Amino acid sequence: MSLGEFDLIARYFQRPARRALLGSGDDCALLAVAPGMALATSTDMLVEGRHFLSTVRPERLGHKALAVNLSDLAACGANPLAFTLALAMPRVDEAFLDGFSRGLLALADAHGCELVGGDTTAGPLNVCITVFGEVPRDGALLRSGARAGDDVWVSGTLGDARLALEAFRGHLVLDGAALEASRAAMEQPQPRVALGLALRGIAHSAIDVSDGLLGDLSHILRLSGVGATLEVDAMPRSAVLAAQPLAVQRECALSGGDDYELVFTAAADRRDAVAAAARDAGVAVTRIGHIDAQEGVRCVDAQGRAVAQCFSSFDHFKS
Amino acid sequence: MSLGEFDLIARYFQRPARRALLGSGDDCALLAVAPGMALATSTDMLVEGRHFLSTVRPERLGHKALAVNLSDLAACGANPLAFTLALAMPRVDEAFLDGFSRGLLALADAHGCELVGGDTTAGPLNVCITVFGEVPRDGALLRSGARAGDDVWVSGTLGDARLALEAFRGHLVLDGAALEASRAAMEQPQPRVALGLALRGIAHSAIDVSDGLLGDLSHILRLSGVGATLEVDAMPRSAVLAAQPLAVQRECALSGGDDYELVFTAAADRRDAVAAAARDAGVAVTRIGHIDAQEGVRCVDAQGRAVAQCFSSFDHFKS
Repeated sequence: MSLGEFDLIARYFQRPARRALLGSGDDCALLAVAPGMALATSTDMLVEGRHFLSTVRPERLGHKALAVNLSDLAACGANPLAFTLALAMPRVDEAFLDGFSRGLLALADAHGCELVGGDTTAGPLNVCITVFGEVPRDGALLRSGARAGDDVWVSGTLGDARLALEAFRGHLVLDGAALEASRAAMEQPQPRVALGLALRGIAHSAIDVSDGLLGDLSHILRLSGVGATLEVDAMPRSAVLAAQPLAVQRECALSGGDDYELVFTAAADRRDAVAAAARDAGVAVTRIGHIDAQEGVRCVDAQGRAVAQCFSSFDHFKS
Repeated sequence: MSLGEFDLIARYFQRPARRALLGSGDDCALLAVAPGMALATSTDMLVEGRHFLSTVRPERLGHKALAVNLSDLAACGANPLAFTLALAMPRVDEAFLDGFSRGLLALADAHGCELVGGDTTAGPLNVCITVFGEVPRDGALLRSGARAGDDVWVSGTLGDARLALEAFRGHLVLDGAALEASRAAMEQPQPRVALGLALRGIAHSAIDVSDGLLGDLSHILRLSGVGATLEVDAMPRSAVLAAQPLAVQRECALSGGDDYELVFTAAADRRDAVAAAARDAGVAVTRIGHIDAQEGVRCVDAQGRAVAQCFSSFDHFKS
């Protein structure tokens, strides 16, 4: 790319600094962190074919690239401050940049999270965002805090992104409206930032669901040295997913991935506080099980009967 | 890549947190920023064929990927704290990971800069690092502070990386020792972190030389609203570059790129302070010109005669 083309790219992304002490345009961006607060940071790299399909609309890709990072802040209970964007593109494509930057910056504005720098280069399409937030030094939601007796909760609904992916892969057929709804879930996840903030001081542990509920919950269990019992059919599902065969529902909800909902645990006597936090954040939350002192995950149905092969059965989609 | 392969990757990179409040393994890393300090951050993405050759040794690639980011902290006068690494690889290659992580972490340790998180994915090789440092809130070295009458200085030597690149491209021939020396400059740049710290309160402006001296200095001039006169043959050159024809010397030194030296300006009455800072940092610095109120760059030879086409003549290497 020529210098002129980089100037063009800068036009799509460069904005004056607001909260940052110094934004784009120097060797570094400078951020202030308030007294008593820690800087929370996370980075995610998105690659075509693995994190998004080549058919995704640029607006939605821009949204998703930031959303998956904001979701990490949400899972820590951190308040978004700023982000950097590194972008490799095979060629300068103004239509792509226009859509991508609009989707990206619309979500950034919605969360008061400003773009403070980055890097652009020619190369295979790759989007790498690093996000910065603030959280009280001793108040972050961690993966390691779950305790036996905690309820296990999840926000929103699970499994729609996986359902869309399987439809795109030709493994199942959805009608037009169902495909569009599940596709929107896959391509435009809503990071649960407000919920993460509201759960500070209430949740004992939290993580966001990027690789699938069972896989992500297992990180909480391992780091907390506990186990869990999950009621598999209590998983919150959209109407679209609920219209699928039960096996597909369970597979998508339990190990679908790309949900960007929060799974978290809280003491059983804090149910009212959890409900109030969810109400304040404008997000539904569902109790899906509880934490056990005994390690491992036990899946049960609505009648409390063990569901066999809770983990190992969830692989028939793999291509 | 399978989960097992990701565990393998984690083994090469995961280390316990030292200064960070929380390192790898949760949704976010948590960093403390000292009172009165700002967090300085920068991100650089490296793509094969543009930022490194496919023949580079993995150790050197690991070194360079962090070095170019540390160089941005150096140019701001920031003290390194931590970094995140996002890495896309076509496949899990243990020999690559072993070398890459050794080169990366050796440089990280040398600068007390700890790896606090990241992301790995399958995809075309891409290395994206975001680095974090600390700098006094009002003490960062910026591009915008140059003043008429300032001296223009540069650290180390210029042009070796470009010389190596041109040899690899077959545009010129170097003997074995010369190729190895210039190749090391290209593949293992030394970020001038200590110099950047020592120049706080002395330099009026600074930038690191990544795209070529003239191009990078032009950012200082534009943001400071000034111009410069440069003595083209005063550019510090290695013995290897100094053995080349004068036209090659000038081209490599003035517009070579990939040098990761600091170019900075300071008041003419601070020459002793600059020399002391360089001595403390263990880096040579060379005065290469001065800042003018008149915009634009004027190149002169050792006799003060104008060198024509200072900018436009530097393109015969372009392929």
